[in-house]
Amino acid sequence: MPYQAPVSEYQFIFDQVVPLAPVVANECFSEATQDLTDAVLNECGKMCDTVMAPLQRPGDLHPAKLENGVVRTPPGFADGYAAIAESGWVGISATPEHGGMGLPMALNTAMHDMMCGACISLNLCPLLSQGQIEALEHHANADLQALYLPKLISGEWTGTMNLTEPHAGSDVGALSSKAEPQADGSYKISGQKIFITWGEHDVAENICHLVLARLPGAKPGPKGISLFLVPKFIPHADGSLGARNDLRCVSLEHKLGIHGSPTAVMEFSGATGWLVGEEHNGMACMFTMMNNARLAVGMQGVGVAEGAYQHALAYAMDRKQGRAPIADGTGTIIDHADVRRMLAQMKADIFAARSIGVACAIAIDMAKATGDTDWQARAALLTPIAKSFGSDTGVAVADLGVQIHGGMGFVEETAAAQYLRDARITPIYEGTNGIQSMDLVARKMMDGGAAAFALMDDMEALASASNSDLAKAVLAAIAQLRATTQWVVSQELNERFAGSVAYQKAFARVLGGYFHLVASMSGQAKRQRLARVYINSLLPEAASLCAQAQAGAADLYALELDDFAA
Amino acid sequence: MPYQAPVSEYQFIFDQVVPLAPVVANECFSEATQDLTDAVLNECGKMCDTVMAPLQRPGDLHPAKLENGVVRTPPGFADGYAAIAESGWVGISATPEHGGMGLPMALNTAMHDMMCGACISLNLCPLLSQGQIEALEHHANADLQALYLPKLISGEWTGTMNLTEPHAGSDVGALSSKAEPQADGSYKISGQKIFITWGEHDVAENICHLVLARLPGAKPGPKGISLFLVPKFIPHADGSLGARNDLRCVSLEHKLGIHGSPTAVMEFSGATGWLVGEEHNGMACMFTMMNNARLAVGMQGVGVAEGAYQHALAYAMDRKQGRAPIADGTGTIIDHADVRRMLAQMKADIFAARSIGVACAIAIDMAKATGDTDWQARAALLTPIAKSFGSDTGVAVADLGVQIHGGMGFVEETAAAQYLRDARITPIYEGTNGIQSMDLVARKMMDGGAAAFALMDDMEALASASNSDLAKAVLAAIAQLRATTQWVVSQELNERFAGSVAYQKAFARVLGGYFHLVASMSGQAKRQRLARVYINSLLPEAASLCAQAQAGAADLYALELDDFAA
Repeated sequence: MPYQAPVSEYQFIFDQVVPLAPVVANECFSEATQDLTDAVLNECGKMCDTVMAPLQRPGDLHPAKLENGVVRTPPGFADGYAAIAESGWVGISATPEHGGMGLPMALNTAMHDMMCGACISLNLCPLLSQGQIEALEHHANADLQALYLPKLISGEWTGTMNLTEPHAGSDVGALSSKAEPQADGSYKISGQKIFITWGEHDVAENICHLVLARLPGAKPGPKGISLFLVPKFIPHADGSLGARNDLRCVSLEHKLGIHGSPTAVMEFSGATGWLVGEEHNGMACMFTMMNNARLAVGMQGVGVAEGAYQHALAYAMDRKQGRAPIADGTGTIIDHADVRRMLAQMKADIFAARSIGVACAIAIDMAKATGDTDWQARAALLTPIAKSFGSDTGVAVADLGVQIHGGMGFVEETAAAQYLRDARITPIYEGTNGIQSMDLVARKMMDGGAAAFALMDDMEALASASNSDLAKAVLAAIAQLRATTQWVVSQELNERFAGSVAYQKAFARVLGGYFHLVASMSGQAKRQRLARVYINSLLPEAASLCAQAQAGAADLYALELDDFAA
Repeated sequence: MPYQAPVSEYQFIFDQVVPLAPVVANECFSEATQDLTDAVLNECGKMCDTVMAPLQRPGDLHPAKLENGVVRTPPGFADGYAAIAESGWVGISATPEHGGMGLPMALNTAMHDMMCGACISLNLCPLLSQGQIEALEHHANADLQALYLPKLISGEWTGTMNLTEPHAGSDVGALSSKAEPQADGSYKISGQKIFITWGEHDVAENICHLVLARLPGAKPGPKGISLFLVPKFIPHADGSLGARNDLRCVSLEHKLGIHGSPTAVMEFSGATGWLVGEEHNGMACMFTMMNNARLAVGMQGVGVAEGAYQHALAYAMDRKQGRAPIADGTGTIIDHADVRRMLAQMKADIFAARSIGVACAIAIDMAKATGDTDWQARAALLTPIAKSFGSDTGVAVADLGVQIHGGMGFVEETAAAQYLRDARITPIYEGTNGIQSMDLVARKMMDGGAAAFALMDDMEALASASNSDLAKAVLAAIAQLRATTQWVVSQELNERFAGSVAYQKAFARVLGGYFHLVASMSGQAKRQRLARVYINSLLPEAASLCAQAQAGAADLYALELDDFAA
């Protein structure tokens, strides 16, 4: 069974679960009518099914390669990228002023999920361009915008983010790349950057690097960092390509997964670049794109989970093994309770993670449309949860997909293991899920938990409208989460951090229960059936997670270093 | 920091947690004195550290290859295997009558754990031989024993298990390989077998295959299957090698992990073999070795977890990143609460899984030494738990090991990902963990839960002797497990199966709490500190797992097939 993008699932979510209507009601998103939304989802879905999904295996089997300074992407990737660019997807949420479609992030998020389910390695390329477009829209001067944005939005050029250095990973502020001002207003950029996704490739004519570096005399740490735009080929004023810049890909990483995506070590040797935003304000500029990138990584996890789920479902409905455990079954392993349990939980978790991601995207859209600080706070709160739960779900679902395949899951030819290998990066990059959890319990709770409690108030209000057993279970879980949140905000930071990953998971579990409840209230019987699975067999995890969240730091720091030794 | 086999950990466990003394008190194990046990652990540990651990990476980077009908194992594997064989390890638990050492399974289990931590791919070879030795000791006639056992015990020849066929995996009884009786009392074996670990290789002069096949006129299903010994070279009566048999490796699998271990597709084309045990009784013979093999797979998980943990710990104590979160720290990422949490939970889970495995091994030894049916029942009960929790711990710990490495964990060069890829087979082979859980709640509870309740009685008796908070938490968890077990045994099978994986995990969590409590009562302060981490931050999962165990099958079977579609 080939991949089918979850188009109708998104139509249901936008209609019934996390409505898109309030977003479209705003002037700036008024073009996102029902008809246009349906058309975009359907067209994107078709491209996923027919163009991108067939590239998933070739991307794994023929990893991107560096040969004589040139990166060769897997067979078919260049054509696949061209199809994406020609469909206008790169610029779907970009400003119409430079050729974008100006559509809501929610729609962009949906498409991104569908495309990652089809072929995550290829989709990372336009995704990185989107992040760059957003950063330039917010922070670049008019000249840079006019020169670069049309090319990035059309997909003729692609964009990258150059943050990490060997000794500056999670602590980006420790980086040491340098920028020397030149008489003509440009800068000479020098230094080495690692883990640069699609840092070099052969699918577009130019590659624009956003690079964090230090100006002479800059303070140490994150407040001494500035952001620069450094193109592979320096464009003339008319957009035609000029001289080759002094930067190069020196190697590609040999990775566990996403083999089709070239992960480059980039060397900048006095490359010409231009300042984006204010001097020493590079971290703030980067955070603009990092927040949305975090949501995007969560949706990568959801997309890979969808691909892995469909793949495992097809296997389970085909594979015959063992005596029939039920009458009137299919005669395949989906009849077995534990296989059915795995598939049902996979599907239920994908719905939960997807809804959380959409809720985050809609909060971003509402914040943009209204400028309302409550929406900003909600988007900020949901971002680490969407990133971590989406990516954890990607790994967990892909892992169950391998398990459903039994021995065949361990054999690479069945492709079940590829989803697991591909998904495994998502809990790591754009800030590990541990970093996300620290962000959640610290920065996102500097308001004393106000944004979290406001979200719980909204959930309770809706759940209280129902008298069902499901609603009661969700209300009980919300009450536990509320009590746990009160504990969290009353603690010193390191006490919070000790259980922050468990807290983050508990929050996601409860949100998932809430969205399943909302879906079950749509009147669709199949939504009620899936909601029962989630609320009766997955939501109970929230109780243990809330207990773990409050374990505190004392036991951890009581351990002496020798205790860790063998 | 190179791998160090956990020798002192085993000395502590055998001394204080799951004492070896009652085993040694039996006549048949009286040679396993403290001095001998220490010597065996120390010598094996030294071999792991110096001979086997250096083969872990080469085994991954240079997978076993089939070239012109010959399987070439990774560089160094032949010498590594020779070192294992020369040390006498293959026959450590085999009968002295044929050259074995007759030592307890508990000691064998410990060595196996240490060797898998060093290099699981290589260790699978002698492990399979051990399974074959055991099967032949129990079921082969005296002539076969006299001819084959000395060669297998000395390691000159190796052994394999040939069960699986393309359409007979979990349902072994569906296999179709055939055996034709010959006038000389031998049989001609024909058929194809898949997933044959170390089915062909270049590290020993002969390979003996135990093959399940059907005699003419045999009943369909598992009751029509017989077991045959089919050597690669047919030995003369003096043990020297004779004619090449009609069997061959037709391909090797391309796998997610354990690349150094050749996983063969074997073709038997009228190969000469000899019946082992009674006609049509092959499944019973196979189960003799499968039970111990299941424990062994659990210990493979524990071993890989230990390797992954040591690897991650070394990284965490070396990697500097971010501002120091605590005063007087190391200045490396182990100072951070979430990294410390991951490492502490990894270590705590390894101890729990290891102790469960040792408890299972000691029950096997006691059953063998005394013939006591209570010990047999305990060994049978603990086997699926040891297999599933050990293997799940292997994957979970290796996954956390990747996470601790951050972006470097996704890059193959750091080797963190290899542990995850290697470990991933263990929840699958020798019966998936789902199959284990069905075995636990069905076959192992045909006694109405008597063996489970007897184990809980023993745990309660010991925990009740303490007034500590830790003991109280463990007692509460035992009470929850008891109530859940009462629910399980009162249900129809499919109701049990729906939550059987959760039940199996709950049982392991509670056992882990118990063994940490026992360790904490040893008076060693570091054991108390680690027990606090487990009991306060991991044991709470048991509550949710008990709830999930009782979710029942109704929600799952209410789902219609269309509900699973996209």
